[in-house]
Amino acid sequence: TLRLRVFDLNCWAIRYLSKRRQERISLIGDTLRQEGFDLVLLQEVWSEQDYSDLKAKLGGCYPFSHYFRSGVIGSGLCIFSRFPILDTFLYQYSLNGYPYMLQHGDWFGGKSVGLVITKISGIVFNIYVTHLHAEYCREKDAYLPHRLVQAWELAQFIRHTSKAANVVLLGGDLNMHPEDVGIRLLRGWTGLRDTFSEATRFEGCKDGCTLIPKNCFTIKAELLPFPLGIRIDYILYKALSGFTVKCEELRTTTGTAPGMDIPFSDHEAVMATLHIQRQGQAAGATPSTADLMLVDVVTEARTEVGVGLRAAQRQRYSAGRMAVLALLLLLLQAVAALGTLVGLGAEQPFPKLSFSLLAFFAIGVLLFATGLYLFHTIEV
Amino acid sequence: TLRLRVFDLNCWAIRYLSKRRQERISLIGDTLRQEGFDLVLLQEVWSEQDYSDLKAKLGGCYPFSHYFRSGVIGSGLCIFSRFPILDTFLYQYSLNGYPYMLQHGDWFGGKSVGLVITKISGIVFNIYVTHLHAEYCREKDAYLPHRLVQAWELAQFIRHTSKAANVVLLGGDLNMHPEDVGIRLLRGWTGLRDTFSEATRFEGCKDGCTLIPKNCFTIKAELLPFPLGIRIDYILYKALSGFTVKCEELRTTTGTAPGMDIPFSDHEAVMATLHIQRQGQAAGATPSTADLMLVDVVTEARTEVGVGLRAAQRQRYSAGRMAVLALLLLLLQAVAALGTLVGLGAEQPFPKLSFSLLAFFAIGVLLFATGLYLFHTIEV
Repeated sequence: TLRLRVFDLNCWAIRYLSKRRQERISLIGDTLRQEGFDLVLLQEVWSEQDYSDLKAKLGGCYPFSHYFRSGVIGSGLCIFSRFPILDTFLYQYSLNGYPYMLQHGDWFGGKSVGLVITKISGIVFNIYVTHLHAEYCREKDAYLPHRLVQAWELAQFIRHTSKAANVVLLGGDLNMHPEDVGIRLLRGWTGLRDTFSEATRFEGCKDGCTLIPKNCFTIKAELLPFPLGIRIDYILYKALSGFTVKCEELRTTTGTAPGMDIPFSDHEAVMATLHIQRQGQAAGATPSTADLMLVDVVTEARTEVGVGLRAAQRQRYSAGRMAVLALLLLLLQAVAALGTLVGLGAEQPFPKLSFSLLAFFAIGVLLFATGLYLFHTIEV
Repeated sequence: TLRLRVFDLNCWAIRYLSKRRQERISLIGDTLRQEGFDLVLLQEVWSEQDYSDLKAKLGGCYPFSHYFRSGVIGSGLCIFSRFPILDTFLYQYSLNGYPYMLQHGDWFGGKSVGLVITKISGIVFNIYVTHLHAEYCREKDAYLPHRLVQAWELAQFIRHTSKAANVVLLGGDLNMHPEDVGIRLLRGWTGLRDTFSEATRFEGCKDGCTLIPKNCFTIKAELLPFPLGIRIDYILYKALSGFTVKCEELRTTTGTAPGMDIPFSDHEAVMATLHIQRQGQAAGATPSTADLMLVDVVTEARTEVGVGLRAAQRQRYSAGRMAVLALLLLLLQAVAALGTLVGLGAEQPFPKLSFSLLAFFAIGVLLFATGLYLFHTIEV
C-alpha cells in the first residue's frame, strides 16, 4: 500500500494586481515545507520569479519540480514533487477567450494542461495540472463554449496520454461547479473520480467549497447567490487495471491559512490523502448505463458549443463587414483624391485635415477588423 | 500476417494560388479509388470543399475519414481509411512562423499533428499525419528553430499518445532532409524507422526524392543545389512489443501521376507496403549507443533552438523599444497640445494637419509594436 498526500491550490499570484502576493507566496512556501506533501499542484503562479523563490525554498523537501510556460505571461501551472519527474508534456487549449477582452486577462495566460510522469514504488503516475477559463457571469456566460471545449480537450488529452499509467491524478481550478456539464463530460469521458465525493473523512468548508465569502480576498458580490461559496477546485483520480485508489481524507482550508489570519489565496487549498493498492483483478469496465448517461452529457455539451459556434460566426461576419466597409471608405477617398488631382473637381471638397484623419481612421478600422476577422475564423 | 498499403502526399491544394488545383484533386481522387490503398494520409488540403469532394468520391473504398481543423485556413491534414476510425486527436504546434510574414503563409495554416486510432485484425494502429514549417532558404533558415521545436513536440506527442498502440505510423511532409537534426531528433527520441532505408524493394525517384526538378510545378531555382531533388516527405513506422513491421516495398511517383502527363502535386507521392506480424518475444530495447547518439542530437538541437531564442528575444526587445518610443512621442504631443490649450505658447507651433497625422502615426506604431511585442513574448 502506498499513501500519497496531494496539495492543490490556485495561488492568485498576478504580479502588480494580486493583493499581498509576496507575503502569501512566502506563507505557501513555509506551509508546504512544514507539511511535507508528496505532490504539490499549483495554478496562477504567473511570475516565474515566484516559482524560482518557491523552488529555492522547497528544494529540500521537494527536490523535483516543473514550471509550464505558455501564452504571453505563462500558463501559471507548476508542480513540486518529492519523487523524480520522468517526463513532462504541455497541451495548450485551442480556445481560451479573446485577446481584446483586456479586463478578463485569460487569453494572455495561455491556459493549458500540464502532464508530469513519475514512478513511485514501481507505480506509474500520470499527474495532470490545469486551469480552465474563468466564469465571469454565471447567468450569461459568454465563455461557456470555450470552457466546454477546454474540458473536452482536457479529457481527450488525459485519455490519449494515460494509457500506460497505473494511476491518474488531476488537480486544478476547473472553474466549474460539480454538476456543470463540463465536469460531467470530463468525468464521464475519462472515468475520473472526485476526491470530495469519495473521501472517507472530510474536513473543511461546507460542501467542499473552495471560493467562499469568508475569505477576505474573494469578491463578496460575486458570491451573493451562493452564501456557502462554490466548489471549483478539484483533485480527481483514477486507477487503471491492476490498481485501486481510495481517498482516505480530504481537507480544505477555511478562509485563512492554518494558524494565520491571512489566507493563502482567494481560493481555498485542497489537500487529499490517497491510498494506492496493487490488486490482482483488472478494474471493471465502465457499465453501459454510464455510457448512456455520457451520450446525454455529450449532447448537452454539443448544444452549448453550438451556441458558441454561432456567436463566433456572427462576430466573424460583423468583423468582415466592418473590414469591407472600411475598405470601401478608403477606396471612395482614393477616388475623391484622384478626382481632385486630375482636376475633375474645381477644388478639394473637404478640408485637408478631416480628409487625412478620415483616411487614417479607415486604415485603423481596416487593420483592426481584419485582425478580428482572422481571430474569429480561428475560433470557428 | 497483415499487409497494409499506405499512401502519403502533400497535395499543394491552396485555393486561388495552386495551379490546376481542381484537376489535380480530381486526379488524386480517381487514382486513390482505383488503387485501393488501406490508409491515405494527405497534407495541404487547405480547402474543406476539396476534402468534401474527395470524401464523396472515395466513400465507397475508404468509408472512414477525418479532416483536422486548426489555424485560420485549417491544418491541411486529412486521413482516409478502409478501417473504422476509433478516435482522433489534434495537437497544434506551439511555434509556427510569424503572422506578419504574409509571403510565407505558414502561420495561417495552424500547423499540427493529427492522430487517428484504428484497429485492424485486432492490432491497434496509431496513425499520425503532420506537416512541419516550410524551409524557404536553406543557407539562412530563419524558421529552423521553429521547425526543430515542432519536431520535438511531434516526438513528444507520439511518445505520450502511443503507449497502448501496437504499431505506430507517421506520414507527412516534414520539410527536413533525411540527415537534418530535426529528423535525427524525431527518429532518435521515438524509435521510428524510415521506410526508405528499410524497404526491401524501392521504385521511384533516385534517393527517394519527393521534390524533384522534373516535376513541372516545382520551382527550379530552389532546387539548383540539388540536381536530383530533395527528400522531405516520409512514411515512418515502429512496432511496439509483441509485433514486427517490415517494409516490403516503397514507391514514389516520378514527376507525373502514373499514366498521365500532369503530376498529382508539386510533391511526389510516397507509397509503402508494410507487413505486420505478431511475434512472441518483446521487441528489443533501444541499445545504449543509440542513447549516446541521441544526447548529441539533443545538444545540437538545443544549440539551434538557442539561436532562435536569442533572435526572438532581440525582436521582442526591438518591438518593446518601438512601442515605448511611440508612447513617448504621443506624450510629447499631448504635452505640446496641452501647452497650447492653457496658452503657454502664443500659438500652436505646428500646422494642425501634420500634428494630427503624426499623432495617428504614433498610435498606429504603438498598437503594431505592442502586438509584435506580445507575439514575440509568446514565441520566447
